[in-house]
Amino acid sequence: MKTCIIGLGLIGGSMAIALKEKNLTTEIIGVDDNKDHQRQALELGLVDRMASLEEGLESADLIILAVPVGVACKLLPAILLKIDRQIVFDVGSTKEAICKLASGLASRSRFVATHPMWGTEFSGPAAAVTGAFVNKAVVITEKDSSDADALQIVELIYQSFGMHIVYMDAKSHDVHAAYVSHISHITSFALANTVLEKEKEDNAIFELASGGFESTVRLAKSNPAMWVPIFMQNKENVLDVLNEHISQLRKFKACLEKENSEYLTELIGNANTIGRILK
Amino acid sequence: MKTCIIGLGLIGGSMAIALKEKNLTTEIIGVDDNKDHQRQALELGLVDRMASLEEGLESADLIILAVPVGVACKLLPAILLKIDRQIVFDVGSTKEAICKLASGLASRSRFVATHPMWGTEFSGPAAAVTGAFVNKAVVITEKDSSDADALQIVELIYQSFGMHIVYMDAKSHDVHAAYVSHISHITSFALANTVLEKEKEDNAIFELASGGFESTVRLAKSNPAMWVPIFMQNKENVLDVLNEHISQLRKFKACLEKENSEYLTELIGNANTIGRILK
Repeated sequence: MKTCIIGLGLIGGSMAIALKEKNLTTEIIGVDDNKDHQRQALELGLVDRMASLEEGLESADLIILAVPVGVACKLLPAILLKIDRQIVFDVGSTKEAICKLASGLASRSRFVATHPMWGTEFSGPAAAVTGAFVNKAVVITEKDSSDADALQIVELIYQSFGMHIVYMDAKSHDVHAAYVSHISHITSFALANTVLEKEKEDNAIFELASGGFESTVRLAKSNPAMWVPIFMQNKENVLDVLNEHISQLRKFKACLEKENSEYLTELIGNANTIGRILK
Repeated sequence: MKTCIIGLGLIGGSMAIALKEKNLTTEIIGVDDNKDHQRQALELGLVDRMASLEEGLESADLIILAVPVGVACKLLPAILLKIDRQIVFDVGSTKEAICKLASGLASRSRFVATHPMWGTEFSGPAAAVTGAFVNKAVVITEKDSSDADALQIVELIYQSFGMHIVYMDAKSHDVHAAYVSHISHITSFALANTVLEKEKEDNAIFELASGGFESTVRLAKSNPAMWVPIFMQNKENVLDVLNEHISQLRKFKACLEKENSEYLTELIGNANTIGRILK
C-alpha cells in the first residue's frame, strides 16, 4: 500500500513514522507547501519522496490529510473529485465542518473522518516522534458514511498504532473536544498572557517557575496556525465552555474577596475528583 | 546533626529522603498530628522515630517546619519560644505572613524563612520522592534577619540538594509566587470544575482526555488543606493576577464572538513567547 501524507507536521510526520514502523506501507509520498518542511521531511526520512498534490493523489492508495482544519476543508472537495478507488482520512480536531462539507461530495464514501487524540505543543516535521499514538483514543465520526473497506483499513491502521477507537457523530465529537481539549488550550494561552502581562521580570519566571507552572502553560507554546481555525470552527462549543470557565474562576475570586475558606475548600475538593476520572 | 521534621507530607518527607541521601543528618525525628502519617513515615523509613513536638524540639539541632502555611504560623511562635541554639526553617509557599509574625519574636534570628520551588499534586508521606529538589530554585526571604550560622547551614542543605538559591524580601516573594505558582493552581482547579460541570459523561473525559488535558488539570488534584491557607494568606496578590487572568480570557471570548482570527492569532502568538522565557 502506497501512502500520500498531505501536511508533514507533528501529526503527519508521526503517522509516517508509525506507518513505516508497523510495516503498513511500501512508500510514503509527502505533499507540503512549505519548502522547509519538504526539506526536513526528506532529511528526517519521514517520506520516501516529495510530490505535488496531483501526483501524490494519483500514486497513492491511501491519502492522509494532516493539515490545519481550515486548509483541510479547502482541500477535501478537490481531493474527493480526483480520486475513485483510494481511501482518504483526515486527522483534524474538529469534525462537524469537514463532515458537513464532505456529505455532498461524489466520493464521500471513500473518506473516513478521524481525530486521533494525541498531540504536543510542538509543530513541523522535526516535532514528529516514534510511538506517538500508543494507548490514546481516536475518534471516528459518521462511520456509516464511509465504505466498509475504507473504514476497515483506517481502523486497522489506528489499531496497529495501539489506539482504541471511539465512534461518535461529528456534532458530539466537537462538543466533547471543546471540553477535554480546546478549553485546555485557551486556558493555557490565557495563563501565559496573564503571567507575561503581570510578571515584567522575565528572570523571575525563568528562575522560579517550577513543574506546576510549566505543566499548566505547556500548551501555550502551541501553534496559532493550527489552533485559530480549530477555535473558529468549533466557536459555539468553545464559547459555551469558556463562559462556564470564566464563571468557575469568578467563584474562586468571590471566595478570596469574602475570605470564604469553607467554600474555597469545597471548590478545590470538587476539582480533586477529576483525579478519580482520569485514573 | 539531629533533625526534627514537623509535618511528614510531600515536602517534609522528600526532605527527609534528601537529608539522609546526602548524609547531612545522624537522626530524623518526625512530628505529625496525623496517626496515619506517623505510621506511614515509620514504615517508609522516612524518619528514625516519631516524637511529640516538645521532645522533637529538645532533641534536634535543626528543625524543619513543613506543615500547611496556616499551621506554620500557629506553631512558629511556640517553637521559637522553646529553642535557643537550634536552627529552624520553614518551607511554606507564602512568606510575608510568617516573616511578619516572626519579626517580633525573641529567637527570630534562629529562624530562616525559605520556599523550595518544587511540589507535585500529591500529598502525605507516601508522596515523598527521591531527588525532589534537584535543579529547582529555593527562595530565602529576609536573610538579614537570620543569624549568619543559621543561614549558612540552611543554604548548605539546599545547595547539597542541588537547588539554586534566590534571595528576596518576603513581599516580593509573595508577588512572584502568585504569578508563577498560585495562579496556575487556581486555573487548574477551575478548569477541572468547568469540565466536570459541562461534561456529564465521565466516560468521555476518561476515554478522550489526552496529554494536553492531563497536563493542564494535573494540579487540580492538589490538596485543599495545603492550598486554601496559601490563597488566603496571599489573597491580594492572587486576586490581582486572577483579575488579570479573567480579563485575558475575555479577550479570547471576544475574538470568538466577533470571529476576529487576526487578533486571536496575535493573542496566541504572544502566549507562544512564554516558551522562550521558560527554556
